[in-house]
Amino acid sequence: MGDGRAGRPLRRIALGVAYRGEAYHGWQSQPGGRTVQDHLEQALSQFAAQPVHTVCAGRTDTGVHALNQVVHFDTPLAREDFSWVRGTNRYLPNDIAVQWCREVPPHFHARNGARGRRYRYLLLESPVRPAIERGGCGWSFRPLDADAMRAAAAHLVGEHDFTSFRSSECQAASPVKQLHAIRIDQRGAYWRFEFDGIAFLHHMVRNIMGCLVAVGAGTRPPGWMAEVLAARSRDAAAPTFAPDGLYFLGPRYDAGFGLPEHTAAMDWMP
Amino acid sequence: MGDGRAGRPLRRIALGVAYRGEAYHGWQSQPGGRTVQDHLEQALSQFAAQPVHTVCAGRTDTGVHALNQVVHFDTPLAREDFSWVRGTNRYLPNDIAVQWCREVPPHFHARNGARGRRYRYLLLESPVRPAIERGGCGWSFRPLDADAMRAAAAHLVGEHDFTSFRSSECQAASPVKQLHAIRIDQRGAYWRFEFDGIAFLHHMVRNIMGCLVAVGAGTRPPGWMAEVLAARSRDAAAPTFAPDGLYFLGPRYDAGFGLPEHTAAMDWMP
Repeated sequence: MGDGRAGRPLRRIALGVAYRGEAYHGWQSQPGGRTVQDHLEQALSQFAAQPVHTVCAGRTDTGVHALNQVVHFDTPLAREDFSWVRGTNRYLPNDIAVQWCREVPPHFHARNGARGRRYRYLLLESPVRPAIERGGCGWSFRPLDADAMRAAAAHLVGEHDFTSFRSSECQAASPVKQLHAIRIDQRGAYWRFEFDGIAFLHHMVRNIMGCLVAVGAGTRPPGWMAEVLAARSRDAAAPTFAPDGLYFLGPRYDAGFGLPEHTAAMDWMP
Repeated sequence: MGDGRAGRPLRRIALGVAYRGEAYHGWQSQPGGRTVQDHLEQALSQFAAQPVHTVCAGRTDTGVHALNQVVHFDTPLAREDFSWVRGTNRYLPNDIAVQWCREVPPHFHARNGARGRRYRYLLLESPVRPAIERGGCGWSFRPLDADAMRAAAAHLVGEHDFTSFRSSECQAASPVKQLHAIRIDQRGAYWRFEFDGIAFLHHMVRNIMGCLVAVGAGTRPPGWMAEVLAARSRDAAAPTFAPDGLYFLGPRYDAGFGLPEHTAAMDWMP
């Protein structure tokens, strides 16, 4: 492949990126420029001294965090992997940091090649709202019942039409998605919900969280989740839960690409 | 005891408070008002509809966090414990929250009555700087040696003249302090340093951290810590380490007061 720039071949580069979502209008580039993609592309372009455009594994909303967002881009430049990491981080704000870099074959695609995606939702159960961890977790002042939430979650595992959990702004071609697992654990005062699937609809995890918390708090019985799912109507579900506790853990690719699935910050939180 | 307000007796109230230090000029009240004490006293005064002045267990610096800062104040008001918590939190910014409230006997004193104090320092060891956890942990891009740091720390345990680790602004009457223990553990990519003592000099933990990291990175041998201590000179020690990773875990009082020593956020971090 040539790029017309003195015939230098294009290399395809993959990066893992971690960021806090609080300060940004989500992932996707916008005219205002206050998005994570805008900051990342600006930083990459400054380091590369030429425009760089990225494709990501999973677009995140305003306030949603990522621990291993994966992007790819094409460049004629030859740089050491860690030069990309260090060089790009120099131009990024302190709540966004490239974690790793690998050259990948030209057929690698960060979005289309993802075989699975994982999200984590962290929730504080306490009569007192978060302070130290504000912006980084959701909150329930009501005690939650683990068994009830696990029973409700079981209704969602498998391939289903998730229309009831889909935002009206969702652009996915189909509302039918495959959820491999929902794991619910308690660590001290914090609940950890982990969602493992192939792809997710817009607001799907936050809408499921709203329903799980309603069941956990005893407002609804576990079987209600099956009714919400069957209704195929957004009106059937609970309100969208806060973005604060939502983390995109990252995508999974064919093992042959050898891309890291773990980043340091996965050890940070409960 | 009377307060001249219709003869209503004063009650002494103790509160546990958690806060992120990033946005504040430390604990202690200042004319500008951008301190944690200023925000807390404003919130308490709004809820109580009369001026409230607090005394704290341990003043923290700019950027330093607290998980169970304890304060006391006197008030003629009779309120349920949780009313103080909820009522005060309503007027506090989202990175400060009262965790608990107890009425205590009039001889309780948050500062003078503390029998011990604990601090935790969290440090990311990684070639890449923090992002998700920025402001909440220190950083070493060099790998650290646990055995070397533990050997160095052992020189500090006990009663010593800590002049070498004391800031020039320290107002303590004596540089002689008692350190009960320094515990050093690794949790994934994060190091956790825990300091258990009776009282600490200004910048003492951050100055010790600077030296421990110098030893951990191999810049200095473990025995150097004994030389620094013996020098009784600030010039002998390493530079003051960043405040970002420092958490005041809280004071310990006589068990008879029955005050909580654990708050939810202690389960949040590594």
